[in-house]
Amino acid sequence: MIRAEVTELVLTAKRMKGLTWKDIHEKVSVSTSPIVVTAALLGQMRLEPNEAEKAADLFDLPEEAKILLTEIPYRGSLTEIPPTDPLIYRFYELVMVYGTTWKELIQEEFGDGIMSAIDFDMTMERQPDQKGDRVKLQMSGKFLSYKRY
Amino acid sequence: MIRAEVTELVLTAKRMKGLTWKDIHEKVSVSTSPIVVTAALLGQMRLEPNEAEKAADLFDLPEEAKILLTEIPYRGSLTEIPPTDPLIYRFYELVMVYGTTWKELIQEEFGDGIMSAIDFDMTMERQPDQKGDRVKLQMSGKFLSYKRY
Amino acid sequence: MIRAEVTELVLTAKRMKGLTWKDIHEKVSVSTSPIVVTAALLGQMRLEPNEAEKAADLFDLPEEAKILLTEIPYRGSLTEIPPTDPLIYRFYELVMVYGTTWKELIQEEFGDGIMSAIDFDMTMERQPDQKGDRVKLQMSGKFLSYKRY
Amino acid sequence: MIRAEVTELVLTAKRMKGLTWKDIHEKVSVSTSPIVVTAALLGQMRLEPNEAEKAADLFDLPEEAKILLTEIPYRGSLTEIPPTDPLIYRFYELVMVYGTTWKELIQEEFGDGIMSAIDFDMTMERQPDQKGDRVKLQMSGKFLSYKRY
Amino acid sequence: MIRAEVTELVLTAKRMKGLTWKDIHEKVSVSTSPIVVTAALLGQMRLEPNEAEKAADLFDLPEEAKILLTEIPYRGSLTEIPPTDPLIYRFYELVMVYGTTWKELIQEEFGDGIMSAIDFDMTMERQPDQKGDRVKLQMSGKFLSYKRY
Amino acid sequence: MIRAEVTELVLTAKRMKGLTWKDIHEKVSVSTSPIVVTAALLGQMRLEPNEAEKAADLFDLPEEAKILLTEIPYRGSLTEIPPTDPLIYRFYELVMVYGTTWKELIQEEFGDGIMSAIDFDMTMERQPDQKGDRVKLQMSGKFLSYKRY
Amino acid sequence: MIRAEVTELVLTAKRMKGLTWKDIHEKVSVSTSPIVVTAALLGQMRLEPNEAEKAADLFDLPEEAKILLTEIPYRGSLTEIPPTDPLIYRFYELVMVYGTTWKELIQEEFGDGIMSAIDFDMTMERQPDQKGDRVKLQMSGKFLSYKRY
Amino acid sequence: MIRAEVTELVLTAKRMKGLTWKDIHEKVSVSTSPIVVTAALLGQMRLEPNEAEKAADLFDLPEEAKILLTEIPYRGSLTEIPPTDPLIYRFYELVMVYGTTWKELIQEEFGDGIMSAIDFDMTMERQPDQKGDRVKLQMSGKFLSYKRY
Amino acid sequence: MIRAEVTELVLTAKRMKGLTWKDIHEKVSVSTSPIVVTAALLGQMRLEPNEAEKAADLFDLPEEAKILLTEIPYRGSLTEIPPTDPLIYRFYELVMVYGTTWKELIQEEFGDGIMSAIDFDMTMERQPDQKGDRVKLQMSGKFLSYKRY
Amino acid sequence: MIRAEVTELVLTAKRMKGLTWKDIHEKVSVSTSPIVVTAALLGQMRLEPNEAEKAADLFDLPEEAKILLTEIPYRGSLTEIPPTDPLIYRFYELVMVYGTTWKELIQEEFGDGIMSAIDFDMTMERQPDQKGDRVKLQMSGKFLSYKRY
Repeated sequence: MIRAEVTELVLTAKRMKGLTWKDIHEKVSVSTSPIVVTAALLGQMRLEPNEAEKAADLFDLPEEAKILLTEIPYRGSLTEIPPTDPLIYRFYELVMVYGTTWKELIQEEFGDGIMSAIDFDMTMERQPDQKGDRVKLQMSGKFLSYKRY
Repeated sequence: MIRAEVTELVLTAKRMKGLTWKDIHEKVSVSTSPIVVTAALLGQMRLEPNEAEKAADLFDLPEEAKILLTEIPYRGSLTEIPPTDPLIYRFYELVMVYGTTWKELIQEEFGDGIMSAIDFDMTMERQPDQKGDRVKLQMSGKFLSYKRY
Repeated sequence: MIRAEVTELVLTAKRMKGLTWKDIHEKVSVSTSPIVVTAALLGQMRLEPNEAEKAADLFDLPEEAKILLTEIPYRGSLTEIPPTDPLIYRFYELVMVYGTTWKELIQEEFGDGIMSAIDFDMTMERQPDQKGDRVKLQMSGKFLSYKRY
Repeated sequence: MIRAEVTELVLTAKRMKGLTWKDIHEKVSVSTSPIVVTAALLGQMRLEPNEAEKAADLFDLPEEAKILLTEIPYRGSLTEIPPTDPLIYRFYELVMVYGTTWKELIQEEFGDGIMSAIDFDMTMERQPDQKGDRVKLQMSGKFLSYKRY
Repeated sequence: MIRAEVTELVLTAKRMKGLTWKDIHEKVSVSTSPIVVTAALLGQMRLEPNEAEKAADLFDLPEEAKILLTEIPYRGSLTEIPPTDPLIYRFYELVMVYGTTWKELIQEEFGDGIMSAIDFDMTMERQPDQKGDRVKLQMSGKFLSYKRY
Repeated sequence: MIRAEVTELVLTAKRMKGLTWKDIHEKVSVSTSPIVVTAALLGQMRLEPNEAEKAADLFDLPEEAKILLTEIPYRGSLTEIPPTDPLIYRFYELVMVYGTTWKELIQEEFGDGIMSAIDFDMTMERQPDQKGDRVKLQMSGKFLSYKRY
Repeated sequence: MIRAEVTELVLTAKRMKGLTWKDIHEKVSVSTSPIVVTAALLGQMRLEPNEAEKAADLFDLPEEAKILLTEIPYRGSLTEIPPTDPLIYRFYELVMVYGTTWKELIQEEFGDGIMSAIDFDMTMERQPDQKGDRVKLQMSGKFLSYKRY
Repeated sequence: MIRAEVTELVLTAKRMKGLTWKDIHEKVSVSTSPIVVTAALLGQMRLEPNEAEKAADLFDLPEEAKILLTEIPYRGSLTEIPPTDPLIYRFYELVMVYGTTWKELIQEEFGDGIMSAIDFDMTMERQPDQKGDRVKLQMSGKFLSYKRY
Repeated sequence: MIRAEVTELVLTAKRMKGLTWKDIHEKVSVSTSPIVVTAALLGQMRLEPNEAEKAADLFDLPEEAKILLTEIPYRGSLTEIPPTDPLIYRFYELVMVYGTTWKELIQEEFGDGIMSAIDFDMTMERQPDQKGDRVKLQMSGKFLSYKRY
Repeated sequence: MIRAEVTELVLTAKRMKGLTWKDIHEKVSVSTSPIVVTAALLGQMRLEPNEAEKAADLFDLPEEAKILLTEIPYRGSLTEIPPTDPLIYRFYELVMVYGTTWKELIQEEFGDGIMSAIDFDMTMERQPDQKGDRVKLQMSGKFLSYKRY
């Protein structure tokens, strides 16, 4: 069994039981954020064993699938680069348009280094707006300095 | 003259005069954010005519360069995809790892559509942290629904 | 079950029952255009639940396929870029030849921004012509201005 | 001299003289549409000799540039595929999302063949709309049947 | 069932019955050329219903395969570009080496336009030659002028 | 000096002197076909020394350019694959659509081997036709058998 | 059945019976070289009918597999270019490093043309050497002159 | 000055002085083979200082070019992969067709490892043949075993 | 059975039996390093017959899988380049950033040649560090000089 | 002036003055390792102002070049991926062959996360060996755990 098959089992169960990601998050974990739980069930993060236990119950997963959910996956959720799906492409476009700006401003503020994509967290929420609601994303990543040696 | 030449003139002047992007922003615009001003000077956004005027003064730009800064550029700041620079690559990696998660969660909250990368704004700031300061990004984009017709 | 399997079930049923897309559109929806219905059955748009119900009846689809038709798909209908099929390639060629012209003329008329491909509709019709009938496409997309902030 | 150099000369002159594409079209041709004239000046179509004459006057082009404007160019206006510029990318996205739908519907209506991108014309106009003005494109291409032999 | 599966059924039956393409052409059609019939059975063109009927009998194809042979396929016969097979690569090489020559000579003779690959026919025959027989290909495609509008 | 520079010198001289390829062929060679002469001047074939002499006179080429025309070039006339120019793309499309058909029919007739693209010749002519003139290409290449050893 | 399946059947039988390619060559053919026999069983060349008969006996292949071994395959043995396997990559590297050298030296010696990869044979042998044995490859291909016409 | 500029200087001098690679080899080195000398002058190998001295005299190279010829180059002689030039492509094709065969036969003979492309030598010569002369290449590379540790 | 299927069998057995790579290494081999054993079980190296025997017992592998573990694999462990998984990407990034530095420093020290990736060994260990533990890799590869001939 | 021009100035001066990287390191810095200094001069790292001062003196660099050496570069030293140069390719090959092994072993030892390529250092030295000296690389990177949130 490979991780992609677990993802397909999860999506089928979610669909047939009429669950939302919000429901799933509430049933699977208290301490982990909805983004991490969703990413794990889509094959990009791992769950803690007790979370995997609850997920396996919720989705009627076989034993091997339950263990796989606790394993570190081979990450990379997109089958094509650039992504063909418009929602995901817009984020990719932001990297293309603002990439060099981020580099200049972050390095001016912090010096030579990067924003970690590992020691990293994020939230996503709805921002009501009269001209049409907005998607608000907050990202925070530890700054890592290039080591001089 | 092409836009990339303007960017190179700007970077040379910034370097020789010892300016920071923060200095530049203060001298070029009051109403526009530092991200937009920096992006414009890197060839990804346009400046308002009065901003271009100030930028041209600050950097001793020729007339054509000044006009070019007010034109809408052909966007795309990266010469290679995936980006080879580690700082920019980390953002690209976030899209690859979290792309499908964003799609699921945004569409569960908002329905079928996308977060606009056009009616979009962002801020970047330093988030002090004992275990090492963090880069904090806030992004907000209007949600656009797929039209049913 | 994945969306591509639903598409294959739909195409097999359409073929064996001798249906046209016109027939299908009439049986599946009154308020949605033939383009959206066809695109949904090819895995690029979603159907409303009552439309999916009718589609499932028409094509004898299993329960999961019916639900999948109401889900937002991961969009992108082409397996290869550039498209190898001549009919689709011609549209791709139009983007390559006229892309910069569209950019110049739309931005001269509207300012800095894009034509939305989300808040977008289109029609396709036959245009009789003595020298050979023509395919007439009308597209209309909301203009979105780049936000200044 | 190569065609791309003519395009750059044209763009510089347009910029320094403060011309719009609308102005240019009016001064260069009466019988040719603004789309064809703009595309020609961007290196994708050719001008008639009298149009090239007027363009050369308007932009102070050298003799060789004037002749080049009447030559059939090596077409293809984009330096990167997929296009990195958001405005142009949206059209590319339409091909990816709707490509198979267009194929199905055009071929159901017309039989086996393609819509010509050569015997083809188009218009672009502003469509006023209370919820935000729209870009309206009309395209018409001759249907060409696959020859049976 | 997808078109590639029909092609595989055809090739297996051809192999097990010891048929040649010449035999097949004679049994399947009188009015269509061997090139079109072969291309159709390889998934690149469609057959007329009576031809598909004969092909289905000859190869013992199931009902759905028979209908598929009359459908317009998604064209593109090569799984890799550039083609790895030496015979096919030689044609690809001709395009790379002579492409610009064809463009110059055809456009000098006909003006701005293309040779249609749709309203197109071809023959292939053996040309005896003492120094070794030659493959002779004749291609004829309608010239299509770029529309001025 | 590199071969591409010779091609540009040739094209500039051709343009400024108002020559056609037909004129050039007549002035440069009697025994070589127009296709080979044109291809050579576009950097894909070599000229015989006496032909290069005449070409150098005709186009006022410097000594090194004259010698370069007699050298075997690094072949490959297209800067992008697939070719973005519509005229050349149609030939590329023929390879994609008919490639496997050519392989089947040529190998059924000749056995295991290829049609040479080296021991190869071709002609291009106008084929008058009431429904629109046609481009007629004749290609003939020696069949080369795979050596058994 | 496709050729890749025959290759897999051959490799399984070879493995389970503990055969070497040397054994196989001896049992399958007397007149054909080990390179051609091995290449054929790996799907890149064809066997003569009597060789295929012996191979089918040796590997217990089904009837269709036996016929497939006598058919001309779609050539191209590598799933990725550049090849990821180090042994094969070294040959690819030789082409990259020495490609232009071979072109200069072969064409200086033979004139304009190529070394055939079709009318071609090769041997591979062990060359004992005190500093470590060496792989010795001899290749010989007919020189083909570019036809002047 | 970069190595590619040295190569261009060498080729221009060779052309204007009417030298062959054979002449050059004789004048530049006694102990090094013609393949290595040619490869060095094309930017793929280095020359010994005394060889570079002679080459600089022969081609009237400036001091920096002479030093560059003794430096280890960044190897890779082809600007495009796959190579568009037919002579070089044939070698690339051999790797694609015979790659897996070489792997099987070399590893059966030698065990797990590779043929070195570094501790490697080769010769190229004309092999007279009544059916047309042949290009004969001999390659010999040290076999390197994968280290077990 | 292909090697990738053996890898999947190994991973499933490892998961269901709760084994670590450390456990596996201890049970499968005494003389071979953990890196080689792990690489072999992931399909990149071969095991000695007695090691394969033990691995087959440990994982309940079928006979063919056991033999496959002793065969030299077609190497290349990544399905996508650049690797999408962040851990693996960081190594790829090191090659991109430091590649030319390694080339300069190794060749200054050793002369013209390479560090072998075949006659090569490595270790990986934990390096305790107060600011966060470090991954320590030691690599050692034989230097191979380019042969002069 | 762009960073690549600084690199070319450095390489020319190094060549004309006959300096080695070892000499340069000794003259430019006491506290920074030879790898970082070399990487900086090749455009991949930055120098401290006093180091840049010494480098500018040593290589007679203009003022802007000196400042550029202290700026954070846009990293990525290779113009082609995969690298065509054999020395650099061997490292790339190691990533392809051992990538998944590193992932398994590092994550088994450390848990979910990566080895930093930023908080990272390395050394390179000669390891004398009777069977041929070896290149010894030691790399050490901080382990970064994926943040749970």
